[in-house]
Amino acid sequence: MTPTTATPSAPLSTLSHAPPWPLGFSSGGVAAGIKKQGVRDLALIHGDAPLTAAAVFTKNLICAAPLQLSKANLVASRGKISALVINSGCANAATGAEGFARAQRATTALATLLGVNATTVLTNSTGVIGVQLPIDRIERALPALVASVQSGSCETFARAIMTTDTRPKWSTRTIQWTDGETSHTCRVTGVAKGAGMIHPNMATMIAVLATDAACTPQQLDNHLRAAVDRSFHRISVDGDTSTNDSVFALASGKAGAAPAPELAAAFEAVAQDLALMVVRDGEGFERGIEVRVYGAKTGSDALQVARTVAMSLLVRTAVTGGDPNWGRILAAAGRAGIAFDPNMIRVSTGGIELFANGAPTTSDPAAVRGAFTADTVAIELHLAMGSASDVFWSCGLTKRYVEINADYTT
Amino acid sequence: MTPTTATPSAPLSTLSHAPPWPLGFSSGGVAAGIKKQGVRDLALIHGDAPLTAAAVFTKNLICAAPLQLSKANLVASRGKISALVINSGCANAATGAEGFARAQRATTALATLLGVNATTVLTNSTGVIGVQLPIDRIERALPALVASVQSGSCETFARAIMTTDTRPKWSTRTIQWTDGETSHTCRVTGVAKGAGMIHPNMATMIAVLATDAACTPQQLDNHLRAAVDRSFHRISVDGDTSTNDSVFALASGKAGAAPAPELAAAFEAVAQDLALMVVRDGEGFERGIEVRVYGAKTGSDALQVARTVAMSLLVRTAVTGGDPNWGRILAAAGRAGIAFDPNMIRVSTGGIELFANGAPTTSDPAAVRGAFTADTVAIELHLAMGSASDVFWSCGLTKRYVEINADYTT
Repeated sequence: MTPTTATPSAPLSTLSHAPPWPLGFSSGGVAAGIKKQGVRDLALIHGDAPLTAAAVFTKNLICAAPLQLSKANLVASRGKISALVINSGCANAATGAEGFARAQRATTALATLLGVNATTVLTNSTGVIGVQLPIDRIERALPALVASVQSGSCETFARAIMTTDTRPKWSTRTIQWTDGETSHTCRVTGVAKGAGMIHPNMATMIAVLATDAACTPQQLDNHLRAAVDRSFHRISVDGDTSTNDSVFALASGKAGAAPAPELAAAFEAVAQDLALMVVRDGEGFERGIEVRVYGAKTGSDALQVARTVAMSLLVRTAVTGGDPNWGRILAAAGRAGIAFDPNMIRVSTGGIELFANGAPTTSDPAAVRGAFTADTVAIELHLAMGSASDVFWSCGLTKRYVEINADYTT
Repeated sequence: MTPTTATPSAPLSTLSHAPPWPLGFSSGGVAAGIKKQGVRDLALIHGDAPLTAAAVFTKNLICAAPLQLSKANLVASRGKISALVINSGCANAATGAEGFARAQRATTALATLLGVNATTVLTNSTGVIGVQLPIDRIERALPALVASVQSGSCETFARAIMTTDTRPKWSTRTIQWTDGETSHTCRVTGVAKGAGMIHPNMATMIAVLATDAACTPQQLDNHLRAAVDRSFHRISVDGDTSTNDSVFALASGKAGAAPAPELAAAFEAVAQDLALMVVRDGEGFERGIEVRVYGAKTGSDALQVARTVAMSLLVRTAVTGGDPNWGRILAAAGRAGIAFDPNMIRVSTGGIELFANGAPTTSDPAAVRGAFTADTVAIELHLAMGSASDVFWSCGLTKRYVEINADYTT
């Protein structure tokens, strides 16, 4: 088996139409009446045959009922599942034993309709915390949901899981390889919902990465964790971790065994596309921030400095204002808890050096201002402590963010 | 020696007039022209005789030049100093060797005027980062500064160290005790400048705690660290640590040896008054937050949960909106990295229980809304893991905060 190419398709910004699911997947979505009338709020992914599954769940101790159930089902099914059902409009979090029972009722009813074992159904919910799931409405809508399922475009599914996202989020990559004389193709397609508005208690990032490559549960889990670590774990809109955050990976195997390095790269690329879309559709988004740290002693040092700078409220408000306050970048790095020599660190923005040798460097004020008013402000720090590097993405903190999260009252 | 009382004077909110310094202290302030014309920007505290000194400095790696000098002088003088000089309008941070040399020139010139050793002068600066100190203007203003010094009220000093604080911050406590037949009194007076506006790179919290009680440098250091730990280390406006943050403690000894527990309590009370004033004069302040955590396994667990909840952007925006989004409190506690049982934790606000036994508790919505629109929103979490507790103070995140920190451009 000789991989010839790992063709990356265009990044999502240029994908105005929803890409197709990989082979072996179909999906659907209906309005169950959980959200206001007529809006699709119940979505299903179904495998034509059993799907290999892996998942990364929120680390929040307050873990929503559907995620507790999905964790248990992943174990019980040994990573071979039939379907994933997601509702928006209600998070079913902080709902106690009753919440767990309702999640179980939903998956059991769906399993009966599909003629599969209930432990092969995964689920998640997104919406208000502390409200019980309207299980009667969901049960009534399940037959129509199953009937709505079709292969092809991921659009219906991507739209049905949206809460207050302003746009659906999808991305895809194809991989081509040859095996002797035979040419093969497989695909990784991902969809996500972000935090278009985290309100009243909506704080759920959900993503699904689907592939028709063949993987064991362990291989899929490895690809998923590596991809999530380089994407969703490298972004922040407000530093809060939701009770329902989850990323699911599903593999149908219909396209055969793709070369592992290319498959890993495709998972990472799709996950990174989706993560950046989540940031750019974050509450009150106006301007992006990308912080790259070089010359750290270890990777975790690099990440810690990058994250601290990217999440600093003073850096984030300066970016919103397009204000070249590089002193705030330096001050944030200095409190990250990572050792470096203040006389050796170099700071630049948009490629313009701002601080080196312990003192401000002479630069062109107009160019510096230009770097701080770019669509994405690109910040670089060179720690001069080693050779590890990392990157973290966030966005300017805006008045609109505060407005969205404060002014809406229940 | 029998302490009879440790009379706490009224908290500062009721102190419309500046309290006096303790015996043995005098202070002054002048306009040196560092800030725009006519505004006092150079302040001096002077001891009638050598003062015992201790200090807590920023942990930021990017430590401002005047703090580097003060650290060295505290060691060289063995904690016995003559004066503390503070300028506003320029932080002298991220200014390299030239910045250190200029700080040294200022303290040396002042020492010559006072006829003391230069190592007995402490200093700090507050204002813009990355700009060299206008040392000529400071040297020209020093004779007038020394001439302005008088005992009594701390008002001139408290006003001269303000940057964009909207009001001066002071507090005082007196302690009375008897030693056989003789009755004694000593005083702790504190002043502070906060973060009325952290802009363009103003991010300096400076406080001075002065007492006429007699202390060794080690005793004073102990009192200072304990007081700072229970006050300034328990507040946050934006989570950023400045390059110039510092709290100085000075003791003249003129009132003799006060009982240690009462002196410690007075230091803590004055520091806590000042810390809360700093929060309440924080950028765009509208509503306070007080988070108390009980039943933690350890004190550091309690602090970690309290800090995570108090600093959560989602909690802080909900408080601004007066929105009873208690799910955000729970979600913040759940991501604090401290183990607890979601079915055992109890959450209440303003004394009203909101979550217990793993599910929302029935409550009166109007009362809950009242608790979230209080002047200070009082949040309590009971972890049911042990008996340790702690408290942390912050404030709602407001549109005005973003405006102040984003819209002002250099």
